[in-house]
Amino acid sequence: MVPFLHTWHKVCYIKNMLQSKLFSKVRKEAPSEEVSKNAKLLIKAGFIYKEMAGVYAYLPLGLRVLEKIKNIVREEMEKIGGQEIIMTALQRKDLWEKTDRWDDKNVDVWFKSKLQSGADIGFAWSHEEPITEMMKGCVASFRDLPALVFQFQIKFRNELRAKSGIMRGREFLMKDMYSYAANKEMHDKIYERAIQAYWNVFKRVGIKNDTFMTFASGGAFTQFSHEFQTITDGGEDFIYINREKNIAVNAEILNDKTLKELGVKQEELEKVETSEVGNIFSFGTGKCEQLGLFYKNSEGESAPVWLGSYGIGITRLMGVLVEKFSDDRGIIWPKSVAPFQVHLLCLDVGDKKIKSSADKIYNLLLKEGIEVLFDDRQAKTAGEKFADADLIGAPIRLVVSKKTEDAKSVEMKIRSEAKAKLVPSKSLINTLKKYAKI
Amino acid sequence: MVPFLHTWHKVCYIKNMLQSKLFSKVRKEAPSEEVSKNAKLLIKAGFIYKEMAGVYAYLPLGLRVLEKIKNIVREEMEKIGGQEIIMTALQRKDLWEKTDRWDDKNVDVWFKSKLQSGADIGFAWSHEEPITEMMKGCVASFRDLPALVFQFQIKFRNELRAKSGIMRGREFLMKDMYSYAANKEMHDKIYERAIQAYWNVFKRVGIKNDTFMTFASGGAFTQFSHEFQTITDGGEDFIYINREKNIAVNAEILNDKTLKELGVKQEELEKVETSEVGNIFSFGTGKCEQLGLFYKNSEGESAPVWLGSYGIGITRLMGVLVEKFSDDRGIIWPKSVAPFQVHLLCLDVGDKKIKSSADKIYNLLLKEGIEVLFDDRQAKTAGEKFADADLIGAPIRLVVSKKTEDAKSVEMKIRSEAKAKLVPSKSLINTLKKYAKI
Repeated sequence: MVPFLHTWHKVCYIKNMLQSKLFSKVRKEAPSEEVSKNAKLLIKAGFIYKEMAGVYAYLPLGLRVLEKIKNIVREEMEKIGGQEIIMTALQRKDLWEKTDRWDDKNVDVWFKSKLQSGADIGFAWSHEEPITEMMKGCVASFRDLPALVFQFQIKFRNELRAKSGIMRGREFLMKDMYSYAANKEMHDKIYERAIQAYWNVFKRVGIKNDTFMTFASGGAFTQFSHEFQTITDGGEDFIYINREKNIAVNAEILNDKTLKELGVKQEELEKVETSEVGNIFSFGTGKCEQLGLFYKNSEGESAPVWLGSYGIGITRLMGVLVEKFSDDRGIIWPKSVAPFQVHLLCLDVGDKKIKSSADKIYNLLLKEGIEVLFDDRQAKTAGEKFADADLIGAPIRLVVSKKTEDAKSVEMKIRSEAKAKLVPSKSLINTLKKYAKI
Repeated sequence: MVPFLHTWHKVCYIKNMLQSKLFSKVRKEAPSEEVSKNAKLLIKAGFIYKEMAGVYAYLPLGLRVLEKIKNIVREEMEKIGGQEIIMTALQRKDLWEKTDRWDDKNVDVWFKSKLQSGADIGFAWSHEEPITEMMKGCVASFRDLPALVFQFQIKFRNELRAKSGIMRGREFLMKDMYSYAANKEMHDKIYERAIQAYWNVFKRVGIKNDTFMTFASGGAFTQFSHEFQTITDGGEDFIYINREKNIAVNAEILNDKTLKELGVKQEELEKVETSEVGNIFSFGTGKCEQLGLFYKNSEGESAPVWLGSYGIGITRLMGVLVEKFSDDRGIIWPKSVAPFQVHLLCLDVGDKKIKSSADKIYNLLLKEGIEVLFDDRQAKTAGEKFADADLIGAPIRLVVSKKTEDAKSVEMKIRSEAKAKLVPSKSLINTLKKYAKI
């Protein structure tokens, strides 16, 4: 029978949950040339694999984190009316020439190649041009506006240097949204709503309190832009902040004029190391005029469309989370994006009675719909299992052993806390649910 | 509160379900240069957008179909132990040189470019080499085997011609799985299970009865391979079949020797036009020996790993479904992959009472978890709405109008059937559920 209701995707990763079956392994060392903390930890913990500098594959654990981040972003974009699509990597030269963004002198991160016919093609480093071209077939009258379109798409950027792990990739996953509006008022309203959606995302992944929205240069995009900068070690930027006055300024535009406009003195600002986790650009009507996207207003007159562009680097955001939420033993995932909520360790796998108890706990957790990675590996010592669990960084570690079995309990430890405690087996589920609600 | 259980993805496309809000539009015409039926229909119905020949973007309706096909394939791959990852498009030259698949003389579909350092890089047209290289860090002993790894990844192939719509793309989505086994017996067992998983996929998307597994040349992959060929107009291949004897042979290997081996005469074979929907390759131990993937067997001796490779072109499969399941009015989606199960049409939107009844039906369907696209557009005539519904091809069309309202009914029509019938509003849900179970 074909099911009547099709959910978008189904969760079906039970096989992966047995650590003995997980093909990707925890490693002793990251590649020696790897300097970034995020890549070192993620490679050692078996989340990613380095193909070359700035180019990483995502293994089962890493893919789970990515999909969870995507899902949070997807929900927030849909809440403000975003409709999901997927554009193409291959790009036509003629389209980008219209806006002066084909020439390597203007955009120095293109990867380019040729069709067998000899025609030039590029690999997309952004998507304003093709999406706007496409919208010419979708927007005819004011009734078709506003339109918000977003995608999760691989971007290719031929970066000269790529030493920040997954925080700056030559190939990376980005959520990019584009808004099309009939006039400045409509455009500004969407822009404000997008800012709010971004704050919701950053709150849900746990970095809102350390994230600041700054006014910055627009680079290859526009004259000015807004950036969301998160305080973190290993960041590539510096910003100047005043927490009390809720002021944040990018180094590149910090000057006397800016200070005066913001009503703050240089000495009141604190310099902090940050990483950009989101950026938004207002193109006004310029881009749509260049590409020929016009609509008929209610008077039947032709008018250019307003364009906004909103990016969140999904893989970069994952890197920032690792930079922020980790200690010398490994990663400490926020609950909202952890690959598994619970890491269940069975210490005496060889003892049938102990293994059977652990199996029961495992099945109980699955039955309750709690995501669990079950360390059922035979050849590993208790010490190795504890070290791997700390490295992988699930929010909750549970241990079943001879000792816990004798006490009719399970040992529970929150990854971010120092001490473990014994929880009676009977009240385990309630204790877990209580923790999750905090 | 952060939810404790994280499903992999959540369904949240309600906004898209109002056709008045859907930014992508049904079109009168496909681009004049488009010759394939699948691309013509999908462009007209607003599922895809043509970026250039062989390069298509997927709009909200098209993305839904893709995700449903992916989900079916994902479930079947996981059932046989596949673990999902995502590799990279960017490829290192040195890796592919080891197996003689870098040179354009051997593989003529590469897109190549250069890093800013001047180093050559390629865009992946397949992934045996990088995945096998990666597995060198995952497979050490016989205890690590078998390992099955799969991904949904964009492939780039610089095809000379691309005239078959989404059935042959220069950029297309593929599910590729790779199996690593300790010996021939283990390898053959996985290969057989993969064949069964493929049959399950083809059954669930509705093409099993018209699909044949053939023995074929291995092309750039191996000397021989198995292909899954589906009878369809617009196919790029021909095969020879005998349905009674369940024999299928590719044209390229049809000769006296093959006929004798199969025990069939030329005149007993029927020539049919087909499209390849899946292929599987056995590399034996050759590829792993070239790349240096060895494991320690139970005697502690080093032995090479057996490699199998299993592809399903997800976008191609979507194209084949459109070729097969369509008529002169539009697409007729199989229930398992339809973007929506129900297309609800409100014909007299201007009449508040009628619109209110349609809204009620819409909300009732949503409450029951039935996916529905609601045509609530004001400016369209009944004729236009019927034509669009036929073009888009949801399995069930429901109509609410003055006429149906007077009869306290809803008009229901199965897309693949000729006649509509009135269903009393009260029994609508039961009728729909009954239909879904057939």
